[in-house]
Amino acid sequence: MTDLADLESRFSGRLLTEGEDTAPFLTDWRGIWRGKALAVAQPDTVEGVAAIVRWCAERGIALVPQGGNTGMSGGATPDADGKALVLSLARLARIRAIDPVNDTITLDAGCILANVQQSAEQADRLFPLSLAAEGSCTIGGNLATNAGGTGVLRYGNARDLCLGIEVVTAQGEIWDGLRGLRKDNSGYDLRDLYIGSEGTLGVITGAVMKLFPRPTSLTTCFVACPSIKAATTILARLKARYDSQLTGFEILTDQCLALVEAHVPGCRSPLSARAPWYALIELASFDPDIDMHDAMEGLLASAFEEGLLDDATIAVSLSQRDDFWRLRESIAEAQGAIGKTIKHDISLPISRIDEFIAKTLPAIAGRWPDMLPVVFGHLGDGNLHFNFSPVAGSDQDAFLAEQDELNSIVHDMVVALGGSISAEHGLGVLRRDEAARFKSPVEMGLVCAIKRALDPRGILNPGKVLPPETLNGKDASWL
Amino acid sequence: MTDLADLESRFSGRLLTEGEDTAPFLTDWRGIWRGKALAVAQPDTVEGVAAIVRWCAERGIALVPQGGNTGMSGGATPDADGKALVLSLARLARIRAIDPVNDTITLDAGCILANVQQSAEQADRLFPLSLAAEGSCTIGGNLATNAGGTGVLRYGNARDLCLGIEVVTAQGEIWDGLRGLRKDNSGYDLRDLYIGSEGTLGVITGAVMKLFPRPTSLTTCFVACPSIKAATTILARLKARYDSQLTGFEILTDQCLALVEAHVPGCRSPLSARAPWYALIELASFDPDIDMHDAMEGLLASAFEEGLLDDATIAVSLSQRDDFWRLRESIAEAQGAIGKTIKHDISLPISRIDEFIAKTLPAIAGRWPDMLPVVFGHLGDGNLHFNFSPVAGSDQDAFLAEQDELNSIVHDMVVALGGSISAEHGLGVLRRDEAARFKSPVEMGLVCAIKRALDPRGILNPGKVLPPETLNGKDASWL
Repeated sequence: MTDLADLESRFSGRLLTEGEDTAPFLTDWRGIWRGKALAVAQPDTVEGVAAIVRWCAERGIALVPQGGNTGMSGGATPDADGKALVLSLARLARIRAIDPVNDTITLDAGCILANVQQSAEQADRLFPLSLAAEGSCTIGGNLATNAGGTGVLRYGNARDLCLGIEVVTAQGEIWDGLRGLRKDNSGYDLRDLYIGSEGTLGVITGAVMKLFPRPTSLTTCFVACPSIKAATTILARLKARYDSQLTGFEILTDQCLALVEAHVPGCRSPLSARAPWYALIELASFDPDIDMHDAMEGLLASAFEEGLLDDATIAVSLSQRDDFWRLRESIAEAQGAIGKTIKHDISLPISRIDEFIAKTLPAIAGRWPDMLPVVFGHLGDGNLHFNFSPVAGSDQDAFLAEQDELNSIVHDMVVALGGSISAEHGLGVLRRDEAARFKSPVEMGLVCAIKRALDPRGILNPGKVLPPETLNGKDASWL
Repeated sequence: MTDLADLESRFSGRLLTEGEDTAPFLTDWRGIWRGKALAVAQPDTVEGVAAIVRWCAERGIALVPQGGNTGMSGGATPDADGKALVLSLARLARIRAIDPVNDTITLDAGCILANVQQSAEQADRLFPLSLAAEGSCTIGGNLATNAGGTGVLRYGNARDLCLGIEVVTAQGEIWDGLRGLRKDNSGYDLRDLYIGSEGTLGVITGAVMKLFPRPTSLTTCFVACPSIKAATTILARLKARYDSQLTGFEILTDQCLALVEAHVPGCRSPLSARAPWYALIELASFDPDIDMHDAMEGLLASAFEEGLLDDATIAVSLSQRDDFWRLRESIAEAQGAIGKTIKHDISLPISRIDEFIAKTLPAIAGRWPDMLPVVFGHLGDGNLHFNFSPVAGSDQDAFLAEQDELNSIVHDMVVALGGSISAEHGLGVLRRDEAARFKSPVEMGLVCAIKRALDPRGILNPGKVLPPETLNGKDASWL
């Protein structure tokens, strides 16, 4: 019996094999990576996932776990050889339990993020993970890539929101690590090892996530700043005075603002002044008797007097707040509308961001006058989306041909300043080889040792995160 | 040349070999565990640590990393065979850098916690890790055991406070993972694997820790509650209304209060009423124009009306605040003063604490009428120190003889309710075998696979965290 026939005989009804059915699972949502697969398995129980993995393990067949297929780094797309099985977690999508006293939600990995947010809200709680793909991405994918988003400043990454996980190992066994505890020092931290490993060490099938009280009010403002340094100074003041009541601090350049105004309906700056940088700032109150409007107003007034900002406005309604956020959240869409893009998802110590911008942007402008920088991100987390587009009318293919050289300039500077070349998107295949280039042989040795220990046959998402030649080849002589 | 002679020839001046010099390193501070060692090495550079580990690795000699030697579980004491080297990190104690813009401090593992708190304060920042041993314990030890303490509710465990670490591997290589980034998804999370592994996977030599703004005022109250359930309800209300401005929620029983009043000078309840439970609650403000006194008063008044508390008082001065905290922090000393102790460091989902108390205390009182429960802890984290003393006049040795049976009753109930038998003290040797008993074969398999991958010769702190027979014996047949 062929592998496919055997698979069909065992897992019928939970298997897609026809081209038109499997197609959406074989390419990422942007169409950058395209692959082939033996089939797409869609188990709807944890035991079903384990059975599929055991089947693969017995035959040495590779499998590619996939959640909502919204990743940015190609981590969920199979390669071109057609021998791997795509393991979709999308049908494993139950909320298992909500415990409002312990402030936890226990759920299947395939739950869609927006549904989790909604379930929390129905229990009068906040699930603070929030990102552009929330209508499609799954909690399992969020954990596999340690997703970030706009709530990190106050609430942390997906990793920080997770208390426990359930994993199907490379041997097809189920590890029940679904603990809802704030303190648990009873052995090695397996949870955090699986989180962010992009399906290369195990398949996350369930999780216990933290819930939080819902703010009673949010005070949101949009600020024009003369420089990124001024924005960083405002950030420091707000952190010092409002600590974790500061729940958002996003930035964008004037180029970003102009792009969304030109290409996304309904986007208009709420300020009359233009400035090189804008910040979107949000303060939360949890006390129904207090909102932060006056506090924000006072802080903005003194920042204005000191020349830290040129103009500012505070949203007076929820719909105006939504308008401010739409400016920030429409940048990727606007950038897509004008043509090809080259993207970098970088992080830096907040103290080095000013220096990074001052050194990198002029170097790139000097080398490529036809490149339009599209720089925005989560200043509060030191995370910039340091993107580029071709200026209007310039050659798209010539632009894309510069990608490798541009990546090197950006990433060399990031690493020189103590930063990371993948802040919240993971490595997948996109950043796999560059990450390996920047990591020390000692670190690569440790990482490969762990991969071999937990997935000795190398069946879990091969080719992602770790360059195959590092894992298998002569480079591994350190072991 | 003997191992010792060779060691002396290479590391002279950084080695203790005489009995009177090595003695303090060969037993824990409470004198529960006693061991022997080949020598005590005291390197004062990271390269010096690496050289010692390489020397051990080449000869297959075991080493026992030790920080301030303040652990509760025997994780830093060598065993009795005298063949291991104690590796003290105490002389590796420089603050390497403070970055007030990035809110990070980079330091050697041997820095004493209180010194780190002080350095942060000098930079007008808060380093929030705080625990009884802070005058002696080191950051390296705090990370190796993922220490908790009284700041966890708002700021998290040592793990949550750490952005990056530097580690000497079992092969004596230096891994530089000293990243000061809030977001970094560029591969496996080695950092969190080392944190909490109690020196069995590598030797932490440095770290980048988070700093925070300092509160401008703290509002502290001491509350008498009719039940643990009432205390849990007050906790939930405070969390909902003040979110992370709630920086402390500790509890103790009336037995604890009576003990400290009787045995620790200067300890007196600030309340006239007695109640089964007391809570010590703290709210922080970061805005110099706002303190939380009125807010606290209002909340306490409505809780009183609902019968959630019998009496309460808010500290009117810093010295009264210190008095409240002394009641909480003197319990261990008071318990020591009346004789032998049996201690449990457990955590539970906060929603199960009431049930745990209701089921466990009566069972123990029925079985051993001569045991005095001494129950206190960090209710906000679900962490109880569930201790026992012999009642006055009863036989101390007879009391201690019941330890194993008592542990089983307590820990079986903890695990049945989804809790952990080691919340913040780690496993060491004290909880090693019990933890292995409660973990599934799948989890033990994963843990052993990681230990073998990173420390294949088994030289790092052998016998701690993992039972040797599990690691080496027939139980390992799953691999």
